[in-house]
Amino acid sequence: MSSLHTPMNFCSHCGNPVSLAIPAGDTLPRYSCTQCGTIHYQNPKMVIGCIAEWEGKILRCRRAIEPRHGLWTLPAGFMENNETTAEAAARETMEEACAEVEIDRLFALINVPHIHQVHMFYTARLIGGRFGVGVESLESRLFEEASLPWEEMAFRSVSFALQAWLSDRKKGEFGLHTVDLPPMPPTPLTPPTPQG
Amino acid sequence: MSSLHTPMNFCSHCGNPVSLAIPAGDTLPRYSCTQCGTIHYQNPKMVIGCIAEWEGKILRCRRAIEPRHGLWTLPAGFMENNETTAEAAARETMEEACAEVEIDRLFALINVPHIHQVHMFYTARLIGGRFGVGVESLESRLFEEASLPWEEMAFRSVSFALQAWLSDRKKGEFGLHTVDLPPMPPTPLTPPTPQG
Repeated sequence: MSSLHTPMNFCSHCGNPVSLAIPAGDTLPRYSCTQCGTIHYQNPKMVIGCIAEWEGKILRCRRAIEPRHGLWTLPAGFMENNETTAEAAARETMEEACAEVEIDRLFALINVPHIHQVHMFYTARLIGGRFGVGVESLESRLFEEASLPWEEMAFRSVSFALQAWLSDRKKGEFGLHTVDLPPMPPTPLTPPTPQG
Repeated sequence: MSSLHTPMNFCSHCGNPVSLAIPAGDTLPRYSCTQCGTIHYQNPKMVIGCIAEWEGKILRCRRAIEPRHGLWTLPAGFMENNETTAEAAARETMEEACAEVEIDRLFALINVPHIHQVHMFYTARLIGGRFGVGVESLESRLFEEASLPWEEMAFRSVSFALQAWLSDRKKGEFGLHTVDLPPMPPTPLTPPTPQG
């Protein structure tokens, strides 16, 4: 998905066909109902998770679902209506790693505009060191810094968050780290030719 | 809106009726199509703006639209697909106050879960001190701290952001401030009776 919209054919209010055009007084194309006139705005979604620490180790999950099946992620997922950002981080950690956490502070905000997402990661403490394996995970594990599987990271935002967290832990102080991730370059079919 | 969903009657993919139920393997009710099975997830939206400073003064706009017509806000609005959080803050400031800004850092994150929103405010510098009045504003103005119209604030998140910003400016250092805003208590018809 690199377009402005998720495709839409019918009005969710009255069921008649929609058309895509810039509404009067607006600046961007929107899906609008050809019958009842309802404008269907589409906006970015938030994906929220945490780095849960226990005795210096970091809780990770290996994905049992696509995309990135089999790769290592941090507990994270789409924020739901009627919850706060910190509640979303705690809920996702419970769902994916069966782990209760005490959420501390937001330390990473990652824009992924071409897929209409904003990712956020909180620092957190794993309560009692207890965790399990949620239905969307193949396994969960506590990793020392030295044993983190950097080659098997599910998402670039997860790598960014881990690097920011490790760097801040070294400094003894957590700040807010932000980055904008562009689309991934296409995988070359042959190795690139050296320049110059 | 204090429910979990924005009401939906028809599938935006195939136009058939939707029903509201917890899908298999899920934990929350979702609208799903009774014919094609498409699940229509609903998620919170981001409202993003900035405090644009010029010679110690703060750029504000008086709203020309509902809700809160006639009250003072900060330039802010719904984040769009295909943009970053900082780009959203700059775009909204251009739309509402015809002002070019240099966005600096995120300093306020405000959860408003009962209306399915997360508000974010950035620090920013008003370029050249130039601004105007966008179509959604009645007027724009630069305010000294002492002249801020606290009694005419459009939104609680705007008051929170202004207080956090002013407090940090006094300290000479901007941090990240977060708050969760509950629903507003209903306006009493008669003044509350003193207790005790």
